[in-house]
Amino acid sequence: MGHTFQMKRGFRLISISLKGFSQVMLMENAFSGGLILLGIFLYSPLLATMAFLSSMAGTLTGYYLGGDRAAVKSGLYGFNSLLSGMAVMLFLYVSWRWMVVPFVGCTAGLLMILFSKVFNKLHIPVLTIPFVLMTWIGLMLTYQIDGLHVNPSFVTASPTQWLIPYNGTPNFFVSLIKGVGEVFIIDSFWAGSLILLALFVAGWRYGVYAIAGAFISWLTAISLGVDVASLDLGLYNYNAVLTIIAVGLLFDERRNFPFVGILAAAMTVPVTAGMDHLINPFGLPALTSPFIISTWIFLIIRKFLPI
Amino acid sequence: MGHTFQMKRGFRLISISLKGFSQVMLMENAFSGGLILLGIFLYSPLLATMAFLSSMAGTLTGYYLGGDRAAVKSGLYGFNSLLSGMAVMLFLYVSWRWMVVPFVGCTAGLLMILFSKVFNKLHIPVLTIPFVLMTWIGLMLTYQIDGLHVNPSFVTASPTQWLIPYNGTPNFFVSLIKGVGEVFIIDSFWAGSLILLALFVAGWRYGVYAIAGAFISWLTAISLGVDVASLDLGLYNYNAVLTIIAVGLLFDERRNFPFVGILAAAMTVPVTAGMDHLINPFGLPALTSPFIISTWIFLIIRKFLPI
Amino acid sequence: MGHTFQMKRGFRLISISLKGFSQVMLMENAFSGGLILLGIFLYSPLLATMAFLSSMAGTLTGYYLGGDRAAVKSGLYGFNSLLSGMAVMLFLYVSWRWMVVPFVGCTAGLLMILFSKVFNKLHIPVLTIPFVLMTWIGLMLTYQIDGLHVNPSFVTASPTQWLIPYNGTPNFFVSLIKGVGEVFIIDSFWAGSLILLALFVAGWRYGVYAIAGAFISWLTAISLGVDVASLDLGLYNYNAVLTIIAVGLLFDERRNFPFVGILAAAMTVPVTAGMDHLINPFGLPALTSPFIISTWIFLIIRKFLPI
Repeated sequence: MGHTFQMKRGFRLISISLKGFSQVMLMENAFSGGLILLGIFLYSPLLATMAFLSSMAGTLTGYYLGGDRAAVKSGLYGFNSLLSGMAVMLFLYVSWRWMVVPFVGCTAGLLMILFSKVFNKLHIPVLTIPFVLMTWIGLMLTYQIDGLHVNPSFVTASPTQWLIPYNGTPNFFVSLIKGVGEVFIIDSFWAGSLILLALFVAGWRYGVYAIAGAFISWLTAISLGVDVASLDLGLYNYNAVLTIIAVGLLFDERRNFPFVGILAAAMTVPVTAGMDHLINPFGLPALTSPFIISTWIFLIIRKFLPI
Repeated sequence: MGHTFQMKRGFRLISISLKGFSQVMLMENAFSGGLILLGIFLYSPLLATMAFLSSMAGTLTGYYLGGDRAAVKSGLYGFNSLLSGMAVMLFLYVSWRWMVVPFVGCTAGLLMILFSKVFNKLHIPVLTIPFVLMTWIGLMLTYQIDGLHVNPSFVTASPTQWLIPYNGTPNFFVSLIKGVGEVFIIDSFWAGSLILLALFVAGWRYGVYAIAGAFISWLTAISLGVDVASLDLGLYNYNAVLTIIAVGLLFDERRNFPFVGILAAAMTVPVTAGMDHLINPFGLPALTSPFIISTWIFLIIRKFLPI
Repeated sequence: MGHTFQMKRGFRLISISLKGFSQVMLMENAFSGGLILLGIFLYSPLLATMAFLSSMAGTLTGYYLGGDRAAVKSGLYGFNSLLSGMAVMLFLYVSWRWMVVPFVGCTAGLLMILFSKVFNKLHIPVLTIPFVLMTWIGLMLTYQIDGLHVNPSFVTASPTQWLIPYNGTPNFFVSLIKGVGEVFIIDSFWAGSLILLALFVAGWRYGVYAIAGAFISWLTAISLGVDVASLDLGLYNYNAVLTIIAVGLLFDERRNFPFVGILAAAMTVPVTAGMDHLINPFGLPALTSPFIISTWIFLIIRKFLPI
């Protein structure tokens, strides 16, 4: 009986850790999480394994160090951990980087506990702040410290290459799929497709909103005249996808036509350009910081404005 | 009769749009606004026209999208719009930049509505925050995006040229006139003179305070040992002029001798140097950000200090 | 009798100015302050004299311009002044820099009055914010202005030299002593030793906590793989020493085992690396900003967390 109980707990931990993957897209659905994990696995089995372990580490940290129980169950202590673990695997260029992942997963879980207590009082969601802060500080440490090195291929997803002279025809479909994958910092067609499928599995609204967000940011970026290469990499899309879901769906209790969400999605494009301009000289990528900034701005405005 | 009504409304819109020009100097006076517009017109008729249209766009946005009625009437939805429109005309180097101006004017009006709701609850004035933020984000977008270019002559008003070896005798009169013009980002003797006249027209205090603020910052800058060329361009003055009016006149209900305003005006000089040092590497000008920072600091301090 | 009264006041002023030196280490003890002053005197008599005068200037400013009486008596209006005065003597490279010191001392005292009023309402300690802000703005002014020059030997204490290839054996003892001295921006064995003695004089807890903080940051820095030269200079230690005293001792009314203080001390190492990465390109040293950031983060967290 104790054995059955143990197995039950094990299954529950796995289920919650999978939910963590769906929480990155602001959903709570273990099956969607599994589809996303499968997408990452097709890109790199090692990366997927470490991401899953990191999600577990964050969940256990949340559970045992006093995180909110309902939040633990919904996978909220996993998503920053798995993103941070993936960042370590992708950006850090030392052979023992996998050893850092569990530690990073726990720290992200701990930060999630601390930040939740502070932000909840202010009625502002934490979003991916622990992931972004930890990855930035980690990259800065790596630059400062002799023994650590940044992955040289890290530049592939970096907007320092935005101005590559490439003059093809922009392809919205490629841009959408790649953009959805860039939420998980990877550039993969299969991962993107499975993440998109996961969105529809969790609810048709998630899928439709994600496509709408990607399309709006794509149009905004084209009308501003960006180059096609970065458009096709989805670098202008992933923040808009997250932002339209956050502003238009998750934090909007009325579920009207997401006018404010569309505005917020369009705003991510200049905010992304601005963030890149400010932090690229320091060797830092924007990550999901434009999503955080745009979502916070619109949530704060909506608090004061009775729209 | 409907026709007369239409004409009345038209005149009122023109009058409010002119007030917008006076609101840049924190005054509410349509005639002063007209003098300032004339000064800009003598510098560049096209620039003046676009500035006026931008002021109208901002005013209409404020009126139709739910801005505060009293604020609309006093021209408060025009001043950030006209400054932003002028920044587009001066900094953006594409032939169709005039087409961007109405859009920018409306956006500045919209931001004014949103920021007013948030800032009013905190009892802090919005000042030129929409103009500064929009111009910075616009410049960063322009740097990042292939199809846009920054006006090469934009550097004339940029403090990246502060250290030009120029050893003349500093001339306060030139510095004062040019400095008043720099509030509107232009380097023109006639514009500066007419703006100064506009200040006296709105009230002798405005004129005297502006001259006092320019003189204090001029003395501070000289005693710190800056070069004469930038002094004569008025680059150390324009923030002090705005700050002494804001701190010493507008937000001081008692109208004593403006001791705090003088301190605030002197403080703009090191704050300007600091801002330039921090943001020039990113290709951004300080604009009126030293005015915003100095005014906010002193307003916050005065809230807590019973002077 | 009036003479005796005058002498009494003189002695009190000296005693309070000495307390200012102990307040840098978050203590209130005139004798400890005297030991620290002696340490600085052994490093440079002129520097010590100017530091003492600056502490007096700040104290008098606090007294006559309406600072809190209890705070004045405990030396709280001296410590930012003396640090700022020392920064002027160490960083500014003009012969008349000693003339700037009294002015800087008074300004730091004035900022302390203003910041205290604001921060006390928020229940957050001001710490060394006036010193850090004034020194940064002063350095930026110096870079911008023709007539001023930064001390070329200023780089000795700068982390721009962190990556010097030096492969000795890290020596905790050297690192501890140097690190304690770096709180006062100087690299001196005798000063460090006397400051450490001053800590034990004020209370065994201060001394033990300082050593513990230095050891934790030393271990953290080594395990992250920093080079030995900067470790031995104590550049990774001084913020940890201050932080563990602030978080674990001063603002902890219960005096348990300082678990949170140890976490905060360890956190200063990545925060120091991050700050250096962000501000060194601007020619600015981190100073005690990592101490301020780490202490504020943990104090804010502890407000929301019932540990």
